[in-house]
Amino acid sequence: MTRTCVTAVVACLVAAGLVPLAFADEGMWLFNNPPKEILKTRYGFDATDSWLEHVQKSAVRFNSGGSGSFVSADGLVMTNHHVGLETLQKLSTKDKNYVKEGFLARTRADEAKAVDLELNVLMEIVDVTERVKAEVKPGMSPEEAFKARRAITSIIEKESLDKTGLRSNVISLYQGGRYHLYRFKRYTDVRLVFAPEQQIAFFGGDPDNFEYPRYNLDVCLFRVYEKDQPLKPEHFLKWSKAGAKDGELVFVAGHPGRTERLDTMAELEFLRDTGYPFTMRRLHRREVMLSVWSARSLENARRAKDELFSIQNARKRYDGALAGLLDPVLMDQKREAEKTFRQEIAKREELKEAMKAFDKIAAVQQVRAKHMLEHTALEGGAGFGTILFSIARTLVRAAAERPKVNHERLEEFTESEKASMELRLFSKRPIHDDLEQAKLADSLTWLAELLGYDHPSVKKALAGKSPRARASELIRGTKLKDVELRRSLYDGGTKAIEASDDPLIKLARDVDPESRALRKIFDEQVKELKQQAYDQIAKAKFAIEGTSTYPDATFTLRLAFGVCKGYEEDGRQIPCATTYAGLYDRAAEQKYTPPFDLPQRWLDRKKDLDLAAPFNFVCTNDIIGGNSGSPVVNRDAEVVGLIFDGNIQSLVLDFVFTEVQSRALAVHSRGIVEALRKVCDASHIAQELTGEK
Amino acid sequence: MTRTCVTAVVACLVAAGLVPLAFADEGMWLFNNPPKEILKTRYGFDATDSWLEHVQKSAVRFNSGGSGSFVSADGLVMTNHHVGLETLQKLSTKDKNYVKEGFLARTRADEAKAVDLELNVLMEIVDVTERVKAEVKPGMSPEEAFKARRAITSIIEKESLDKTGLRSNVISLYQGGRYHLYRFKRYTDVRLVFAPEQQIAFFGGDPDNFEYPRYNLDVCLFRVYEKDQPLKPEHFLKWSKAGAKDGELVFVAGHPGRTERLDTMAELEFLRDTGYPFTMRRLHRREVMLSVWSARSLENARRAKDELFSIQNARKRYDGALAGLLDPVLMDQKREAEKTFRQEIAKREELKEAMKAFDKIAAVQQVRAKHMLEHTALEGGAGFGTILFSIARTLVRAAAERPKVNHERLEEFTESEKASMELRLFSKRPIHDDLEQAKLADSLTWLAELLGYDHPSVKKALAGKSPRARASELIRGTKLKDVELRRSLYDGGTKAIEASDDPLIKLARDVDPESRALRKIFDEQVKELKQQAYDQIAKAKFAIEGTSTYPDATFTLRLAFGVCKGYEEDGRQIPCATTYAGLYDRAAEQKYTPPFDLPQRWLDRKKDLDLAAPFNFVCTNDIIGGNSGSPVVNRDAEVVGLIFDGNIQSLVLDFVFTEVQSRALAVHSRGIVEALRKVCDASHIAQELTGEK
Repeated sequence: MTRTCVTAVVACLVAAGLVPLAFADEGMWLFNNPPKEILKTRYGFDATDSWLEHVQKSAVRFNSGGSGSFVSADGLVMTNHHVGLETLQKLSTKDKNYVKEGFLARTRADEAKAVDLELNVLMEIVDVTERVKAEVKPGMSPEEAFKARRAITSIIEKESLDKTGLRSNVISLYQGGRYHLYRFKRYTDVRLVFAPEQQIAFFGGDPDNFEYPRYNLDVCLFRVYEKDQPLKPEHFLKWSKAGAKDGELVFVAGHPGRTERLDTMAELEFLRDTGYPFTMRRLHRREVMLSVWSARSLENARRAKDELFSIQNARKRYDGALAGLLDPVLMDQKREAEKTFRQEIAKREELKEAMKAFDKIAAVQQVRAKHMLEHTALEGGAGFGTILFSIARTLVRAAAERPKVNHERLEEFTESEKASMELRLFSKRPIHDDLEQAKLADSLTWLAELLGYDHPSVKKALAGKSPRARASELIRGTKLKDVELRRSLYDGGTKAIEASDDPLIKLARDVDPESRALRKIFDEQVKELKQQAYDQIAKAKFAIEGTSTYPDATFTLRLAFGVCKGYEEDGRQIPCATTYAGLYDRAAEQKYTPPFDLPQRWLDRKKDLDLAAPFNFVCTNDIIGGNSGSPVVNRDAEVVGLIFDGNIQSLVLDFVFTEVQSRALAVHSRGIVEALRKVCDASHIAQELTGEK
Repeated sequence: MTRTCVTAVVACLVAAGLVPLAFADEGMWLFNNPPKEILKTRYGFDATDSWLEHVQKSAVRFNSGGSGSFVSADGLVMTNHHVGLETLQKLSTKDKNYVKEGFLARTRADEAKAVDLELNVLMEIVDVTERVKAEVKPGMSPEEAFKARRAITSIIEKESLDKTGLRSNVISLYQGGRYHLYRFKRYTDVRLVFAPEQQIAFFGGDPDNFEYPRYNLDVCLFRVYEKDQPLKPEHFLKWSKAGAKDGELVFVAGHPGRTERLDTMAELEFLRDTGYPFTMRRLHRREVMLSVWSARSLENARRAKDELFSIQNARKRYDGALAGLLDPVLMDQKREAEKTFRQEIAKREELKEAMKAFDKIAAVQQVRAKHMLEHTALEGGAGFGTILFSIARTLVRAAAERPKVNHERLEEFTESEKASMELRLFSKRPIHDDLEQAKLADSLTWLAELLGYDHPSVKKALAGKSPRARASELIRGTKLKDVELRRSLYDGGTKAIEASDDPLIKLARDVDPESRALRKIFDEQVKELKQQAYDQIAKAKFAIEGTSTYPDATFTLRLAFGVCKGYEEDGRQIPCATTYAGLYDRAAEQKYTPPFDLPQRWLDRKKDLDLAAPFNFVCTNDIIGGNSGSPVVNRDAEVVGLIFDGNIQSLVLDFVFTEVQSRALAVHSRGIVEALRKVCDASHIAQELTGEK
């Protein structure tokens, strides 16, 4: 029922207008361009430089795709259970299943080292726009322009890495309007401290995902180590005693992954008609495949758990986003805004390049549409969707790329990315042959359907066999599960790769030329041309609307502000916070049927809990996927909650901000402590967080 | 693991050859062209005319899509639980859920009348080939030919109906090579007598579907009434005391739905590259949608149960069939066979039309591919996938068709189909607004993705709203749940339909012209041209290979023979029969996790059961979807089992017969009686079946 309200929400946007200078509590703001004035004027809050620096350096990026924060002087990092899930899965075995049973380190010695986790902390931002743009000269072909842009980017990154030792990435903001160099501290000794049972972390499962009211203890704690000692971070967030209060101003510091708010109509229509439906079809297929495979045994279900979760999560997210694009109210609104904007541009002779940019972006969509299937299947690797194939490809490409000059390499093989790439490549994560085989058979079947049985790459992929027979042959035949073998192939370079008769290495080699050709098309004909066009549009936006705005999300650190508050839905008032009492009511109402069942100790210890304690709450802050695990802090930069989701109505935030019903969902700080003390036997952790016995 | 063996199976076909004159135990034989000689020669069995008549008239077709048989002098009909499922679902409510809890009538008075079930018994077959073919003259356009064929078909059917009072259908066999008039007795007072819990009927659920060994009590019993009295059928099958024995010759009389064994390579390649992948995408989408909706509450799950089952069942079936088409061993084999056949044709001047037929069939595939999406979405109704829309369309079309001369009407509105059509149209089956709305929103979203947002029919369908908003408006607005309203619209004809402001009637009216145009293309450019071409190919086949063969399946009564026997898989010998002991072992091995859990009374009464009693068994008989519920009988035409599935290896039977590993799965007659007496409190039914106390 809640889904039908998207229209109502969007209808209200008409009143809100769409100029990017933030109305309401809109914005995923850059830490080097924060909304100081808005905060001052609207909330009387003074976001000082030291406050901003403290929050910035307390925030942590999970390189695997999520956010977190330092929450103790001894390097404790808080994130979501579903962000930690990948690590929990990698540490689990058939006999000790941390996903199902949870995890608790009673002492530091019990903390379990993550297999391949990398955390990043943003230390510094440097504007390098002019230096990048100076290299891309008018009149260059897309190929030349792309090369020039990549080269200067790599050079800046390498210089920075050499100078500071920090992970250095040039980030394209405003879809090419600005370039900022981000310097991160990398941490790779990260140990698991605490996770609850997935049953309570993700209570209500897929059906309740993106819904509210909710009752999820979606929290996971890690500790960062350096030189085998707990890190003493320069900055960490203190714990608020009271936690989030209805009506309170709160901030979210995290890493929103991707939004499409500055997209032109042509691009939105591409996503609506072509891009998202294609993605949905892939997700549907993979969800069915993994569900069916999981249902065959409990051990299968355990092995596929995190992947099935992320597929279902993505499916629900795209479903909501697509519903937004299919809503004429939203689209008419965006269309009207673009029209107005173009009329403004037309008035100014100096912005005439921006006028052309709209047509260029429309033309780019044709290129995308034409090559999308092949690009996703081959260069995207979806036609070979397994861990082992991605290892094979990385090895094949590393051999070809590493001998090249740094700035001529593919992005992921440059010096600034090397450490992260090697961490993933040599990860000792568990790889299950049976699951790999099932996934590969399904991917190869999909590949044949998608590109046609007689497509040259399909022929190479199948090698005259049925998808199932071929998948069996490849997975049984490969030795790439052996990390030492990977190392020797990596160290042996081209010679070793060429000499290898590993069937997956051979396959990765065979399909590489066509994959690279597709990447070249996308790099030059899509990415580069879009950058150029959006650069013009960004210039026009700055000229017309000023520079006090925020760019689309880029999985880099952003600050969002907002207020804890409920909303109205179908005539009912949804309160700001839920309680533990609500959790037990919901479970009873669903007769404890999975995914509404509760772990036994949660049933046994109900009597110990303060049932009136707040559990989850909502706020108006502007977040999106990637923000999962972000801390919610108050004016004093104290933790009052932990972002873990958005509601159904927030799924249109990809394209447009609204705060009528759209809400960020968070676990309440008091709810976390209540659970740690009364159910999870983790009073020592509660004490580390709060400083209280 | 079992799936990878399809290749091995198919490899063995090379040895078996592919000429349609049945090798091994191949064939879905016509009752008027039975394999008497093969049975005599190979098994020393004399299939007398009286034996054949007895089996034929004991067999029952479930018009909803399945098979069954009379098994008592008082009109008891045996079929599968999954064939009865639709009726169980329609009779259930939130408070009495027969699907979950099962059903048992202790007395005749307790038997529950099915909502809209129609059973057919085949009384007579008349060859009308010459009469049909005489009307389709050489030189006719496809339009003229289609009309002529439809007209003579309707005329023959109407004549037969008027003369005999029997449901009369002209069936096109050998894909147009022969036309037979089938006369059926219709029964519509059908009452539910017994069904076990779905947990035991479909133990192992989707994961074990199409797998073996199995442990399914997939049985459901109905009783046919006439004039409010139990029918005393002229023929019914007696119960075998011993039941199926390993190595024994057995027969299956049932209604296989559809095979593609006579398809040309061009048609098989169309199915592989275009048709089946498209179907799979729809099934994946609908499966995810229904799963998600079901997971939201127990009542949702109940409401969507039968539909989700049939989607998952179809998905698994198509998955297996597609795997066969993607297997180069199978396809090379078919290609080789076609090549040989064409070489034979080329030798005979009188068969030159058959040579052209191959190209014509290839050309038809282009037409199918071009219009497939629109045809499925609009004429197929998949873009509006709800019960209420199909009611609306039937009403709109009935108004237009009924005033026409009988033989000019759309097929489903002719006099011979009228009674069945009205039974469905005025069915009091439950219709759930929330499920209808969810399905319609999903279908409309799919429609927009498939045909494009700006397609004229999509615009009509959405009427300027988002799919969700539009679905809500249509389902909330329609009054078609009211059966009396349907009657008055039906009786009121065109005038009533044109005057109606019911939003679904309006929608069905709006999209009808384009839907009909698509149907016309498919009727004339696909169906008719295929009939003509396959008629030539059939002629050639008869000329070269003789007429002692069977046609592809057509959901009409067929006889299959075979032997009860196990098979080898991955080096293991799979025994012919499973036992009750095996059921309990499998449940324990899966820790009683759904769908491997057992109803409480099955746990409680384990001690009463003969655990060595046979439960399920396999046989080599040639069956396919539609055969579900078919009786398995011995030489004495006694029931020894009940067909309910095929194994994974049998999924290639769509295209080619094999008996190396491919098996039909049946419930053992002794297993049925054991359950009725010892667990289901239904000794009175066991007695009616066996004649024993």
